[in-house]
Amino acid sequence: MADILQNVMDHAVAVARKAGEVVREALSDDRKVMTKSSAVDLVTQTDQKVEDLIIQSVKEKFPQHRFIGEESVAAGEPSILTDDPTWIIDPIDGTTNFVHAFPFIAISIGFTINKRVEVGVVYSCLEDKMFTARRGRGAFCNGEPLQVSDQTDVHRSIIATEFGSNRDPEVVDKIFSSLRNILSLPVHGVRGAGTAAVNLSLVASGCVEAYYEMGMHVWDIAAGSLLVLEAGGVVMDVDGGDADLMSRRILAANNRSVALQLVEHIAPYRPDRDDAPRIAPEGPVRDDLPPAASD
Amino acid sequence: MADILQNVMDHAVAVARKAGEVVREALSDDRKVMTKSSAVDLVTQTDQKVEDLIIQSVKEKFPQHRFIGEESVAAGEPSILTDDPTWIIDPIDGTTNFVHAFPFIAISIGFTINKRVEVGVVYSCLEDKMFTARRGRGAFCNGEPLQVSDQTDVHRSIIATEFGSNRDPEVVDKIFSSLRNILSLPVHGVRGAGTAAVNLSLVASGCVEAYYEMGMHVWDIAAGSLLVLEAGGVVMDVDGGDADLMSRRILAANNRSVALQLVEHIAPYRPDRDDAPRIAPEGPVRDDLPPAASD
Repeated sequence: MADILQNVMDHAVAVARKAGEVVREALSDDRKVMTKSSAVDLVTQTDQKVEDLIIQSVKEKFPQHRFIGEESVAAGEPSILTDDPTWIIDPIDGTTNFVHAFPFIAISIGFTINKRVEVGVVYSCLEDKMFTARRGRGAFCNGEPLQVSDQTDVHRSIIATEFGSNRDPEVVDKIFSSLRNILSLPVHGVRGAGTAAVNLSLVASGCVEAYYEMGMHVWDIAAGSLLVLEAGGVVMDVDGGDADLMSRRILAANNRSVALQLVEHIAPYRPDRDDAPRIAPEGPVRDDLPPAASD
Repeated sequence: MADILQNVMDHAVAVARKAGEVVREALSDDRKVMTKSSAVDLVTQTDQKVEDLIIQSVKEKFPQHRFIGEESVAAGEPSILTDDPTWIIDPIDGTTNFVHAFPFIAISIGFTINKRVEVGVVYSCLEDKMFTARRGRGAFCNGEPLQVSDQTDVHRSIIATEFGSNRDPEVVDKIFSSLRNILSLPVHGVRGAGTAAVNLSLVASGCVEAYYEMGMHVWDIAAGSLLVLEAGGVVMDVDGGDADLMSRRILAANNRSVALQLVEHIAPYRPDRDDAPRIAPEGPVRDDLPPAASD
């Protein structure tokens, strides 16, 4: 087992770095000649290209392994987490950032066995920061060990979250209600990188104390959640219950004390689970792209 | 005049780079041994040290010039913009980010003559990005010319703003009301770097289409506003009127069309002006630090 996991880690790091090059090239080559509208096509093409690159290379090396990937799921493949060795891939986490060249764009690769994340790699490719974690072996950024913040008081914390792309008024009510509650605690600040994977790496790095969100997907958080755990943090449901990778809800924090202070103030809602049966999708579902970008 | 301005620019860049080194050293040396609480003392010390460094070096070279600096004002000096050549300095824009080592921390140096910004330098020191602008001569990042985004449709834009540090419920109501209006337009996304100077450099770089805020200070925006103008953008009041450096209100955008679409949705309020008479301050005023950090 140990050797397999090391091979998986090495491969994930190598392919994430290659994927990052593709993303950087797409941004530097194509942004010069494109308008922001054509950028939306570019993100879709690059997303697909990067996911293919990762999946093909993994298939060659680990032919028995399964995949859950953002683009494959968008193309109609099921997203059921089994006990089999599974690569959970977001080729570009932060698609809106990509469209605008906003500096946080990540390739996220998680690897599970028995439904548990064993390896997590997040490559923040414009910053050139390679975040890696293996269960029980710590978390690292470019080889340097990561440690969550030692803050126990939520009032002295920075909290990361996102507005998400759901504009259903009821959902927006809850997002704003949570945000206002938390801001008024008060806390030192609220930030959002625009990608779940980077938000989780910021928790692991000690730059923010906690990150919570509802509505993101398993491929956005599989790798990053292991970074947080291995940097000494905690990962749970937004209601304080056990974390559930497929639930599309997450609260990750530097410690249990900060996490539970936040639970009191988050207005929870339940997005459809990632493993919910899908009702005859009419074409690709890309709810990570903002509403205005997908029209 | 031309020569003086080039000398000012050269000096601002050199001293901003030196200041950035001090900030980076403070973070790497002291963060290892400190808790988040002692970090608040560190930011105050480093802020003071960096401002002294900048002001002393400018005084030696340009003994006739005046200053408006965050730390000097906090120490009780007046903040009146005159026609004299004036350096407007924020030694650390993003003090909350500094406390947490969140990756956006900037040294902001603006230079005015006849109340107009002629030179602007923003050094985002953890990213090592040196943003420079001289009126009529363009804006640059590490020597590469900057250009605002060409997007004209607010629905396809990313908007930057901040929650600020004012927790007066009436102000918070307006901040949330504006934010919700804008998010629901909808737009591609809302981001906030945690520093006005970096938010303005993101507009100038084309990574976000616009930035608005009320409550920040002249030293946060003097340099960055010139970056936006020289990258082809616009700077105005949040109500669409003329920009006023001392008003503590700003709307900067890639173009007039996006700016005016936002004006419709911003709930404005009027913080006390930076040049308002001050009523016997009891000790330093540091309202840039979050409420929880200053106790």
